[in-house]
Amino acid sequence: MEKVEKPKRQHILESAAILFRDKGYSATSMRDLARAVGLQASSLYNHIESKEKLLQEICLANALKFLSMMEKVEAMDIPVAAKVEQLLRLHIRTAIQDVTSVTSFNDEWRHLGEPYLSDFKDMRRDYEQRFIHILRQGIEAGEIRAQEPQVVLYTLFSSLRWLYDWFQPGRRLSAPDVEEEILNLLFYGLRCSSELDSESV
Amino acid sequence: MEKVEKPKRQHILESAAILFRDKGYSATSMRDLARAVGLQASSLYNHIESKEKLLQEICLANALKFLSMMEKVEAMDIPVAAKVEQLLRLHIRTAIQDVTSVTSFNDEWRHLGEPYLSDFKDMRRDYEQRFIHILRQGIEAGEIRAQEPQVVLYTLFSSLRWLYDWFQPGRRLSAPDVEEEILNLLFYGLRCSSELDSESV
Repeated sequence: MEKVEKPKRQHILESAAILFRDKGYSATSMRDLARAVGLQASSLYNHIESKEKLLQEICLANALKFLSMMEKVEAMDIPVAAKVEQLLRLHIRTAIQDVTSVTSFNDEWRHLGEPYLSDFKDMRRDYEQRFIHILRQGIEAGEIRAQEPQVVLYTLFSSLRWLYDWFQPGRRLSAPDVEEEILNLLFYGLRCSSELDSESV
Repeated sequence: MEKVEKPKRQHILESAAILFRDKGYSATSMRDLARAVGLQASSLYNHIESKEKLLQEICLANALKFLSMMEKVEAMDIPVAAKVEQLLRLHIRTAIQDVTSVTSFNDEWRHLGEPYLSDFKDMRRDYEQRFIHILRQGIEAGEIRAQEPQVVLYTLFSSLRWLYDWFQPGRRLSAPDVEEEILNLLFYGLRCSSELDSESV
């Protein structure tokens, strides 16, 4: 199989990710992909083996990216809340900048075949458990409000899922603006005062 | 066309919503749906015209449900933060209890044909603008932290999207527990103190 130089392959991966996102993995054909990247379906096969292989590559690359950041953050000598911040910034930037992350972390990973599906789930579980461990450390350290870590984790992850869909360069808000807005909301919440108000919540 | 009594039709709608969610709308066939509801494909057509009609019905019913709640909340004589809370509780409960809402508000609405697609988008925009208006009122009233309302809105909506996937009755956390956990996180944030810490955020 002809090896493709990175940019071309990256272009194919991103085009595939966009198609998977918009049409769904099942409904996306190699013909659709060929059209998207401006190749004949026949010559596309010179670059990639199959749709499944693309999905595998996209999911694996993203899982490894997040796990390696987790390793970096775990090793950092900073307050726990700052570790959570580092991880959330990675999630936000990835959601804004990397369309392939959407494919893998939202729904399309479900279409992976074995053993890739189990591998992906294991890596994801590993990442989540290490994130939850950091949240627990933050709660013990009194830096993070005592809340159910799993609910917090999923709510945080999920809260960023609109970004890939919405964010376009040239919007009124820059990517860094949006990042700060979201971090402030997630860290400090909707309410002005943290004084509990029995009437609401 | 034979009119079906509500429960049966509701069962078909929910089965369709689950299939759309799991396989995607495009990949879901009437045959899949017939199997899911235990009917012959032929007799399923006695109950419903088409896959498209089901998606239309699911999306319209959900859009109307949220708009009617918005109208109720707008008319309530309560603090603005309590209005936001009411709306968020509706979003949380819907995400936990109503599988059809997932289909319509996550991705499958994209498959609506015209004029249904435009109608759905208009109703959604209307709902979002009215929600943003409430957020602005809360900011003016000093009840809601001053933040970009659109970013806040989308982050709030998105933050609940994991629920339908994760929540099952009989989990360690009850639905009301999860609801309180999420509301507390969204209203008060991750940090224990609201004192700004330049090192994180």
